Formats: sequence, structure tokens, C-alpha cells
Amino acid sequence: MPTNRVLIFSQVPQGVPIPGQDLKVVEKEGPHPTSTRPPPGGFIAQSVYVSFDPSMRMRMTTPDKAGVFPPYPIGTALTSACIVKVLVVDSSISTFKPGDLLLGNGPVQEYHTVTASAVPQFTPLPPNPFGLEPSVFLGALGSTGLVAYAGLYHFVKPKRGETILISAASGAIGHLLGQLAKREGMTVLGIVGSDEKVDILTRKLNFDGAVNYKKGDLHKSLKELAPNGVDVYFDNVGGQVLEVAIDILNQNGRIISCGAASQYNLPIEKQYGIRNTFLIISKTLTWTGLASRPGAWMLAYEEERQKNMQKWIHDGTMKPLNSFTYGFENSADGVVDLLKGSNVGKAILNLTDAVNEP
Amino acid sequence: MPTNRVLIFSQVPQGVPIPGQDLKVVEKEGPHPTSTRPPPGGFIAQSVYVSFDPSMRMRMTTPDKAGVFPPYPIGTALTSACIVKVLVVDSSISTFKPGDLLLGNGPVQEYHTVTASAVPQFTPLPPNPFGLEPSVFLGALGSTGLVAYAGLYHFVKPKRGETILISAASGAIGHLLGQLAKREGMTVLGIVGSDEKVDILTRKLNFDGAVNYKKGDLHKSLKELAPNGVDVYFDNVGGQVLEVAIDILNQNGRIISCGAASQYNLPIEKQYGIRNTFLIISKTLTWTGLASRPGAWMLAYEEERQKNMQKWIHDGTMKPLNSFTYGFENSADGVVDLLKGSNVGKAILNLTDAVNEP
Repeated sequence: MPTNRVLIFSQVPQGVPIPGQDLKVVEKEGPHPTSTRPPPGGFIAQSVYVSFDPSMRMRMTTPDKAGVFPPYPIGTALTSACIVKVLVVDSSISTFKPGDLLLGNGPVQEYHTVTASAVPQFTPLPPNPFGLEPSVFLGALGSTGLVAYAGLYHFVKPKRGETILISAASGAIGHLLGQLAKREGMTVLGIVGSDEKVDILTRKLNFDGAVNYKKGDLHKSLKELAPNGVDVYFDNVGGQVLEVAIDILNQNGRIISCGAASQYNLPIEKQYGIRNTFLIISKTLTWTGLASRPGAWMLAYEEERQKNMQKWIHDGTMKPLNSFTYGFENSADGVVDLLKGSNVGKAILNLTDAVNEP
Repeated sequence: MPTNRVLIFSQVPQGVPIPGQDLKVVEKEGPHPTSTRPPPGGFIAQSVYVSFDPSMRMRMTTPDKAGVFPPYPIGTALTSACIVKVLVVDSSISTFKPGDLLLGNGPVQEYHTVTASAVPQFTPLPPNPFGLEPSVFLGALGSTGLVAYAGLYHFVKPKRGETILISAASGAIGHLLGQLAKREGMTVLGIVGSDEKVDILTRKLNFDGAVNYKKGDLHKSLKELAPNGVDVYFDNVGGQVLEVAIDILNQNGRIISCGAASQYNLPIEKQYGIRNTFLIISKTLTWTGLASRPGAWMLAYEEERQKNMQKWIHDGTMKPLNSFTYGFENSADGVVDLLKGSNVGKAILNLTDAVNEP
């Protein structure tokens, strides 16, 4: 009999969450889904891939400190996007069958008993004419890929010859955005947290340059990397890196803020204060917030995104990267690794071993 | 024999400049202009009004710390916009004559000997069909008025029913911008530094409300003043007030940064760090820098601005306010009063008494 484990938000973390303390993998109580019948109008499914996202950290808070995302109630499962494999369906469902893979959103757990009211949270994977590996639909062809695609065309408005600087450039959004910007003829520079990531960007993903912000003086490194300055800064990290980027932006430069990963684990009084905002005036900068909620404006890019990026991934001119955490028992560590910036590309909990078990 | 005094930048101030130490009124050496002939192709004129602007503080620095404005060389006269009265012209000049008032830009001093090469710095006042008091051409009908007018239509893009919050709202730009926004059907709120200024805005200029940021908790006061939040924040001050404004902005709010008066007197390491820039993402804010350099985009509004604002000032529906400093001997104090925020409306050195002397 398989277990049914669930990843619980057990207490509000101080700083980076601690596995086993703030986030706990526990055995789910009650009868195991695979030993029961599907609920009327529902189905039973097994998790294959689970998306880990920085926004999870913002949800690990109390309701009075809630931001844009609803807080996880303490003692309940984290929720996230996932790909599940259908095991048993109620006879009233004709739109999918056992063995189908569905994109969903639900608790982070091994098995799902999906009631009729939760069925709309699950949809078949998009058409996949090139037979791409399904996990890509949580990354490049999922919401982070859409943020990169729509973010580039809607906000960055790429111009051939301009220089774009991207922070967390090897992250889920950054590594795709950089490749898309490169296709548009921009000079693409990245800021990352290790020499290994610098190598990945410049050798594997065709970035024009990258710096490790943990080594040396970032201001100096960026001045050397971009002697003609930077026209666009796409920010995924906030904090001091953002302040330095404002310093090196060119006249009429543009900032697109998409994340503040360096600040998510800090209380407001410890968050980094940006001191050089007067440069917004003297350099006549524009600064736009890009929230990764898939609003109508973003979904308007979806069809074009799927068509183009599927083709580019298939022909090898777009390289989506994943950081897999293997095994449900490691799920808390996987979330924490992401929050520490250990991942390259999209962070995904990979449960295919369990699915492929006999 | 009249004196010819000049306002000298004598040393780089620490913080707010000190009259008599950092800024000195001194007797200009050499023969007095009124006792000499005009230079070939030039003229001799007397200052009537001199504009005092916050940007003067940014120019009181050393070249290595220069920002967008060129620093004043130590030991030389401050320069600024002015209105002068022509005394004597060289016979080669036919475009204006003694007694004419000219708009100019030059050293802050009582009398000007304008050489042929400096003549293009001076132009006749714009047509003035309603016979408005000339000082208005340094304020509402000068560059600050153009910033307010073009800033509103080009950047704020006013929408009837929206709420705009303006800091330094009784200042040279703020008090005009608020009146213009009100004409467009916006709810107009101001942040100022005294109860007297609150009164002026709400009783005299028809603002919907205003708060004194020096009294009580600004965050709380603004929440009470704008229970439905704020759609646009027009910032003239930067610093902590800016941080609070970001907090209370509505979803999809817009920030237009036009000045950072609270920070001009501080070295970078003492400048206030804005900690809540992650709200730019979650509220999908846009933030635009409006530098008060009269670029082409701004000058495109000039004709319309003169036509409309002259009419509105004449019919009393637009009230331009001035803070006059009287007498050249008080010019250093006038600059410092402006930098301390003592002014209401446009800060102008008023030398009409001297001009009107027999």
C-alpha cells in the first residue's frame, strides 16, 4: 500500500523556512485515495510534478501580514501548480480517462481525491505536437514561461541593439527571458549567485555576459560588463542589487520589477531601503511592476507563446532548464533550496519514480 | 551711485546652506555697469525678479559629485532664471529697447553687462494680452508652470474621478498641478509642512484635502484623508513621504517623481532608503521620472499652456502663488528659506523696489 504524504505549513518561518520545523512532510490521515472510489463527479489522481515558486514564501505568513497572495493557513497543506496522472474517474466524467496527465492546482501531496467542485482546477495539458517532456508545462510552457514571454513583449518592448540586465538570471523566469531577449537582438546580461550559474548562462544559454553578485563589487563588475550602460533592468530580486542597477541604468532606462527574492524572507523593518530613487528623475527612468498573476493582458499572449516556444524548444534554439527535487520526502528541502536560490531554471518536485513504479 | 551686488557660492554646504558662509552677497568688483557703455552687440540691464529653485542645491557641490545639473564653481555667482529691465543697448540691437523687460538666465546679481555672446540667453516676455504681473512669467507662466502643465497631461494623464496626491503641494509646481488636476475632475489631496499651508490649499486653492506631514502619523492621516486610496502620487520630496505614498497607492497606481526636496541636502549615505518597492510588483504600479529640463516633449505644450493658463489666471480660476524675498541683501536667505520649505508657491527674489527708485 503506497503512502499519501502531504507538505504542511506548520509555522510561520523566521527568515528562510526550516524543513521539519516550519514545513513538514506528514502522512495524510484517513483512508488512502487508491483504496477508495472517486467522489461523484470527481476523480483520483497521483502527483507527477509539483511546481515550487518564490511566491510560496509570501504565503507563509499570518493573515494580518498578507500581501497579494492569500496566506497558507497554519497546519494546512501548501498549495501549488502541479501535473497529475489520473488513476480512477467517476463514470460521469468523459473529458479525460485513467492515465491522462492533467495540469492542476491543489495541495502539495502525493495523491489527490478531487471532488466535483475542485475538478475545474484541473485541465488537460495543452496540445503537444512535438511530444515535449511534460514537466516543461510547469516551466517554459507554464506560468513562468508566460511571464517571461508576455513580460518581454508587453513591458520590456525589446529593441535590437539595446542592453538588458536580468537579475536571478538563471531562475525560472530569468533564463527564459534572457533567451527571448537574445532572439530579439538585445545584448543580454545576467546577475546570478554563483560562478557555476555564470557558466551556464554564458556557455549554454548564449547570454552575452553574467556576473556573480556574491563575488567582488557588483557596481564595478557591472560597469565592466556593460561599459555602455544598461537600457533595461528586469528585476527578480529587489534589494541592494536593484539599487546598483538603478545606478548603472542609462538615461531613459526602463525597470521592470517582477520579483524581490532577496527580500521575501525579511520582515519589513529589515528590508533593504533603495536610496537612489532620485535617479528616476534625473535619468527620466520608467519603472513598471509586473505581477505574475495571469491577468487578461498576459493570457492574450498564451496562444502565440505556446506556438513559438514549443517550436523553439523542439528545434533546440530555446533551452528550458529545470531543477528537480526527487521524492516527496524531499519536498520541504526543495522549497527551501529554491528560496535560498540554489535552483537553476524552474524548481519542480519530480515524482516520476513513484509514478513509474510497477 | 547704486551698488552692484552678486550672490556667490563660497563653499560646499554641509546640509542646508548657511547664508554668509556657504552663500555670500558680495559687492561686485570693477566699474559699475551703469557707469559704462554697453559692450558691442550687447546691453546693460537691471535685475527685477530672480527665480529661486530647489535645483540650485544640487548645483552646490563639487564636480566629482555632480548630478544632472552642472555644479556652480566655488567662488562664482549662482546662476538662475530672471527677469531684467533693459537700461542701455548697443546701437546694433533693434529687437528691444531701454525699459523693456526680458526673460533671461544668468548670474544672480543686481546689474548685468550682457555681451553679444550672452544676448541669446535673454528673450522678450511672451505676449501678455491680459497684462498679467510680470513675475508670473517666472512661476505659473515660467518653467515650473510648464512642468505642472506638461507633467499633468503627459505623465499623470488625468481621469475624472481619480484621486491624486501631491507632495510639496504648496510649492512652485505642486500648487499649480493641484489646481490643474482639479479642473480635470480629479480629487486633489496635498501633503505640506505646516497647518498654514493646509489652510491655503483647502481654502484658497480648492484642494479637496491636505495634511501636515510634520504632525502625527502621516500614514494614518493619509488613510483618513483618502479612505478609497490614491490613484496617482505626484512626488516632489522623495524620502519617507514617498515610502508612505507607495503604501497607500491603489492597485495599478501611478507615481510621477518630479523632485526629491527632502533629500537634496543629504549625502547619499544619509539618504532615506525606500523599503517597500516590492509593492510596485504586487500593486502593478508604474513609476515615471519627470525631470524639469524643458525637453522637446515639454515645449510641445508651451503654446497651449500660455494660452490656457493666462486665461485662467486672468479669470481668477487659477491662482498662482509667489513667495517673494525683497531686497538683494536678503538673496542668500531667500535661497535657504526655499530649501527649508518655507515658501508657498514660486520663490522669487523681488527687486522691484530698487527698479522703481527714482
